[in-house]
Amino acid sequence: MEELLDQISPFIHRTPILSSGLINKMAGCEIHFKCENFQKMGAFKMRGALSAIKNLNESERKKGVVTHSSGNFAQALSLAAKSLNVPAYIVMPDTAPEVKKAAVRSYGGIITECPSTLKDREYQAEKIVKEKGANLIHPSNDLDVILGQGTAAMELLQDLPDLDHVVCPVGGGGLIAGSSLAVKFFGNQCTCIGGEPLQADDAWKSLQSGKIENNETANTIADGLKTQLGDINFPIIQENVSEIIRVTESEIITSMKLIWERMKIIVEPSSAVALAAVLKKPENFKNKKVGIIISGGNVDLSNLPF
Amino acid sequence: MEELLDQISPFIHRTPILSSGLINKMAGCEIHFKCENFQKMGAFKMRGALSAIKNLNESERKKGVVTHSSGNFAQALSLAAKSLNVPAYIVMPDTAPEVKKAAVRSYGGIITECPSTLKDREYQAEKIVKEKGANLIHPSNDLDVILGQGTAAMELLQDLPDLDHVVCPVGGGGLIAGSSLAVKFFGNQCTCIGGEPLQADDAWKSLQSGKIENNETANTIADGLKTQLGDINFPIIQENVSEIIRVTESEIITSMKLIWERMKIIVEPSSAVALAAVLKKPENFKNKKVGIIISGGNVDLSNLPF
Repeated sequence: MEELLDQISPFIHRTPILSSGLINKMAGCEIHFKCENFQKMGAFKMRGALSAIKNLNESERKKGVVTHSSGNFAQALSLAAKSLNVPAYIVMPDTAPEVKKAAVRSYGGIITECPSTLKDREYQAEKIVKEKGANLIHPSNDLDVILGQGTAAMELLQDLPDLDHVVCPVGGGGLIAGSSLAVKFFGNQCTCIGGEPLQADDAWKSLQSGKIENNETANTIADGLKTQLGDINFPIIQENVSEIIRVTESEIITSMKLIWERMKIIVEPSSAVALAAVLKKPENFKNKKVGIIISGGNVDLSNLPF
Repeated sequence: MEELLDQISPFIHRTPILSSGLINKMAGCEIHFKCENFQKMGAFKMRGALSAIKNLNESERKKGVVTHSSGNFAQALSLAAKSLNVPAYIVMPDTAPEVKKAAVRSYGGIITECPSTLKDREYQAEKIVKEKGANLIHPSNDLDVILGQGTAAMELLQDLPDLDHVVCPVGGGGLIAGSSLAVKFFGNQCTCIGGEPLQADDAWKSLQSGKIENNETANTIADGLKTQLGDINFPIIQENVSEIIRVTESEIITSMKLIWERMKIIVEPSSAVALAAVLKKPENFKNKKVGIIISGGNVDLSNLPF
């Protein structure tokens, strides 16, 4: 993982670690926020995308990479591929907002539109794999992506080796799986804890039942966390994540507003889930040194919850 | 000024200097943002308040400080006074929003309410000076305050000694006067430039006419810049500021949104005025190295212009 960080670090920012005296007072612990909202393209996903491409050999790279996503990963893979001079094919639902398509294009991604069902998207991506020989990269259920995402927690632990807990949001499982590996390899009696919306608590349910559970609905403001765990990240999470704390929508919004108002930084709702988890169970974190991964800062300013 | 910075630095943050590749590309120059939105209480005003109190002798400090303000300076003086164990009397109009009064109280300021006319506020402040022997501190027309505000530009030039221009917003004149002195003492062929709302362009008009002009109206979203120059800061500005660039309301809002979206930081409208000025006259800044003072990040999230 250290070698991986060396490989990707020329293409990413070493993001700052910030804190707030007032939030520490409210939480009763010492919180250090790893600000991936300041990462290139505004989210940690650049790390995993770069990691996956770096792992390809020269001839694989020439054929390019493909993913189906309408969110941050489409942009991250496009920009990572551009940084490494690799073609990126992005399958997007034809219903995706024009602004997201424009962002992908601005990073050099080659868009193929298709109907918005998962089946159509998978079919279209497979077609590009066959026709171009491109390498399919899953946004979260891919070991190289997982290791790449873990480099944020790794940097946090390099700077603060005595953290007691690292807390991050749980969506598709790539970030928390990677963070939990970073905690295992680089932490010192440190545990990895997840924050998850109660409205999309598939990971919490999966840890309870011991098998991957689905969200029946996923009606949460934390739109980055609606995705489901996969068969590669779930066993890693099972083994290395000590707890998942679920939070309500109003707890997410309150934490988001707290970060905006007190820290003067823009974070997306998904990022606020981790702070909401710490504030929800203050007894678990009392007087501890806690690292929180702020996952990103891509929000629609014309559609804020406050 | 270096000694002053040493004196106040235990009580302030050394704020980070950030930049954005995309904004540089748009502006055609290299911009370095000095982020006083991350300063204590969210604005540069802590610097001037501390500087003014530091300049008092022991017996003066015991009697406390007094100001009349409904804005950031009321909070800054309260917090600075608390940090230095000095009583702070704050005269506020009885129409001031409860949230601002609560903020002053939370920093330990002792509030006296009065009718909202300038005359009433000045009378009330004078009364406290007489009764308590407290020292009246003007938010911007006070040499110690001016020198304190200048320490932000001074830090910027310590880190980036080869800046060609330092650009900051112009309101009451304290920040720009102090910044222009910092540029004079610590810059290397550097000029100090002001950004001012066209809707409150008293400083631009004053430089044209050679005497302090008033705003007849001040209908700008940059509410921190509605105040007027004073007889102490005006001569400093006249001598040391090379240009004031005026910007429209929509240019301010566009620049504010650009900073929020691209840099993921929360800045108040007044702060965006400086970037708007650079974007307005790209030919003046082409390929130059430009420092911008981001004055603060105190905004009402429930009342945004986008």
